[in-house]
Amino acid sequence: MVEQQFREYIKTISNYQEAIGVLGWDLRTGAPRKGVEQRSEVIGTLSSEVFKMSTSDEIKNFIKKLREESTWFQLDEVTRGSVKECEKELKKLEKIPEKEFKDYVILTSNAESAWEEAKHNSDFASFQPYLEKIVDFNRKYVEWVGYEGNKYNALLDDYEPGLTVDIIDDVFGKLREAIVPLVKAVTESPNQPKTDFLFEHFPTKNQEALSKEILKSMQYDFEAGRLDTAVHPFATGLNPGDVRVTTKYDEKDFRTAVFGTIHEGGHALYEQNIDKKYIGTPLCDGTSMGIHESQSLFWENFVGRNKAFWEKHYDKLKEYATGQFDDVDLDTFYRGINVAGPSLIRIEADEMTYSLHIIVRYELEKALINGEIEVKDLPKAWNDKMEELLGIRPSNDAEGVLQDVHWSGGSFGYFPSYALGYVYAAQLKNALDKDLPNYDDLLREGNLAPIKEWMTKHVHQFGKSKEPLEILKDVTGEGVNPSYLIDYLREKYSEVYKL
Amino acid sequence: MVEQQFREYIKTISNYQEAIGVLGWDLRTGAPRKGVEQRSEVIGTLSSEVFKMSTSDEIKNFIKKLREESTWFQLDEVTRGSVKECEKELKKLEKIPEKEFKDYVILTSNAESAWEEAKHNSDFASFQPYLEKIVDFNRKYVEWVGYEGNKYNALLDDYEPGLTVDIIDDVFGKLREAIVPLVKAVTESPNQPKTDFLFEHFPTKNQEALSKEILKSMQYDFEAGRLDTAVHPFATGLNPGDVRVTTKYDEKDFRTAVFGTIHEGGHALYEQNIDKKYIGTPLCDGTSMGIHESQSLFWENFVGRNKAFWEKHYDKLKEYATGQFDDVDLDTFYRGINVAGPSLIRIEADEMTYSLHIIVRYELEKALINGEIEVKDLPKAWNDKMEELLGIRPSNDAEGVLQDVHWSGGSFGYFPSYALGYVYAAQLKNALDKDLPNYDDLLREGNLAPIKEWMTKHVHQFGKSKEPLEILKDVTGEGVNPSYLIDYLREKYSEVYKL
Repeated sequence: MVEQQFREYIKTISNYQEAIGVLGWDLRTGAPRKGVEQRSEVIGTLSSEVFKMSTSDEIKNFIKKLREESTWFQLDEVTRGSVKECEKELKKLEKIPEKEFKDYVILTSNAESAWEEAKHNSDFASFQPYLEKIVDFNRKYVEWVGYEGNKYNALLDDYEPGLTVDIIDDVFGKLREAIVPLVKAVTESPNQPKTDFLFEHFPTKNQEALSKEILKSMQYDFEAGRLDTAVHPFATGLNPGDVRVTTKYDEKDFRTAVFGTIHEGGHALYEQNIDKKYIGTPLCDGTSMGIHESQSLFWENFVGRNKAFWEKHYDKLKEYATGQFDDVDLDTFYRGINVAGPSLIRIEADEMTYSLHIIVRYELEKALINGEIEVKDLPKAWNDKMEELLGIRPSNDAEGVLQDVHWSGGSFGYFPSYALGYVYAAQLKNALDKDLPNYDDLLREGNLAPIKEWMTKHVHQFGKSKEPLEILKDVTGEGVNPSYLIDYLREKYSEVYKL
Repeated sequence: MVEQQFREYIKTISNYQEAIGVLGWDLRTGAPRKGVEQRSEVIGTLSSEVFKMSTSDEIKNFIKKLREESTWFQLDEVTRGSVKECEKELKKLEKIPEKEFKDYVILTSNAESAWEEAKHNSDFASFQPYLEKIVDFNRKYVEWVGYEGNKYNALLDDYEPGLTVDIIDDVFGKLREAIVPLVKAVTESPNQPKTDFLFEHFPTKNQEALSKEILKSMQYDFEAGRLDTAVHPFATGLNPGDVRVTTKYDEKDFRTAVFGTIHEGGHALYEQNIDKKYIGTPLCDGTSMGIHESQSLFWENFVGRNKAFWEKHYDKLKEYATGQFDDVDLDTFYRGINVAGPSLIRIEADEMTYSLHIIVRYELEKALINGEIEVKDLPKAWNDKMEELLGIRPSNDAEGVLQDVHWSGGSFGYFPSYALGYVYAAQLKNALDKDLPNYDDLLREGNLAPIKEWMTKHVHQFGKSKEPLEILKDVTGEGVNPSYLIDYLREKYSEVYKL
């Protein structure tokens, strides 16, 4: 009886979150400008209801009753997992003073527009006061919620539970050690790929049709989703029967849409294939940002940038293009789409340098939260780190410290997930190779179903019922291990650049 | 203080309704099939919250305190209007037994799919049990909420407050008396318009561009709206800064999109131009279904089917078409788009016969609610009425009694609004002619702004703060008067059919 009431209660929370999700999707895919301010208030109303329900006396009572020993072990597995999630959330939310939380929500909502303008004008000083308050809140936040070891661990826990500064320092240290010399070798290689053919006119309409075909071949279910455009593409799981992908089309560079769609499609496959028994609970979600990113990056890089994939799809690409690849053989094409080298903008970075961009941000965040540097020091510290890791220095803050939206929204602790996801993806690929040793043949045949099914079996289906390290351990038998990614990058770029 | 708290309270209700509105728009414009069931639950959760808030002790207390004489006359006009609306809503909702209401919500939600299937199979018997329960509820409903005079008045009040069976019987009687002989004359006229050119291939893409141009010339604000496609087109006002239009494209009949878009655009202009002071209150809405329909029908017929409008727009239409009008002069085109005559399907009916379709439904509804006929008698009664009024008889129930969705959703009392809206539109047009005697010239120049401004000044801006008859009286100095519509139809069809 209590169990059923609890399940109804969390189902209501989950319904509110789904409504917020639809409103968010709508805002980012073409909601009219003049309605946005009022729409934000609607989202605010629903969000504050979710906050209230997640910290109410009612939910505390549910947890208390369900935790009683005579009850606990008779509960359904899904209920037990949900109670744990609610407890975890409650413990955090309870510790944040309500007034400070509300002020912070308003602060970050205003900070995003301040950031946009600052980036537009490359004017860090105008954003600095916002960022100082945001960092200040996060420094207090880690004290409120508590931590073991490094203060930054408290933030990591929000995005990548189980991961700590000790683990990440080790993993990122190894990545850095391996990738920095690889970047040097690639940059200096006399065998630079030809790339001019990448930048010819490719009509949007054709890119859209191609994107849909690729999504279908990835086993993305269009009866449980749709493809739209957005300025900043994303995927969103509203419920497992409605998981939407967005992309954007650059008629002068088809890669934006093709690889962007595959990337978001990877996120979407995760959400479409969570076991339906988790619907209406907090477990019906990806388990962490890192595992989510492992899915998007697996599909984008280990499938989409794999030569065997293009053995099947290159003819298809030519069909949709208007002649730009007619004189380009597959090998030249493959090398072209895998061109790599130091660049300033993270979201435009290649597979090889991507992790280095993340390490820059991770080290700055860690230093900020631990009070080792201050916000005012960031622009210089950013540029120094870029020079140290990538050998290039931004000439202004728009292409430096102001390039990412994350900090304006208070997402400290998020960035490491990107590189961790990449590390996980390589580990998963290694495990998958043992079960599907004919991996490249499958790509060559365009038979991606077994690959998707493997991911569903080992990752997707569990939703949030398993922690990231638990998933990793169960599939690979290991913890986080960057050596698979390192081996992969070395091998791949040795081939592409004939090192 | 209480006033402010009340305004915050109703703002929250209005935010919930806006969220429900977005979810509804989304469901009808391409939400993936597999997510619909779960999405309906989300809408259910939010709707039941609105029901709770609208009938809570809190709102009762607000109303009581604000109604105290010392307070009442110090209230802002918007607050006073809102209190009245909340009171009205509360009085109704309170009288419905909660259990019966909930059962009815579930019943109508299931009845819609039952209706769809029944219509598909032209099988009234399978829908009959649902409809019997729905009629039964409505018969009880009129007793719960009470009525003066005819029982059907209680239902009319939900859609067209101030209108009664006495008024409508009189109005519809006059319409019938005038239109039935007109239909006969038109049908028998030897001067039938040429129409073959209407049905040639007109690419969707071009129809879409044309639809957008026409909406813009109507002064529809695309920064406060968007145009999408839907199987059953509609317009929806989420807030005055976000009012969306939907349409559908038939490549074998451009009229579906062009006149459909103008129609929905007329609804949208109403919602975009409600005074912003009403945002966050129940007054931020069209005042009735009839006045709403007066706007859509005014634009569709008095603008879109006017010859002067096409003197400006016919060349534009030819630009977007692929040759189908090249040998068709304006007069032939004008007569073609105004072809009229008896038909079976309401939503495909022309201006002349439309009201007769409505009268069929009105008379059946009235008889049902008053217990003069039973649901099982409907198919035959429908066909008899069609024969009596339009002179044609449906050969099956799909093109007869099962054609409309309304009854499956329990919308008894809604249909009369369509014909009333048409009558209002003609009355408004008559008043507008006095202020803008150069009306046809404005259309000829494509200068629609003064027309839209006139509608905003006299209708749009007030939202729900004035009742339908109040609006009509203030603009025209009269009550409902069908003679303007009758004169208009006689004159127009005499010209088109050279009677």
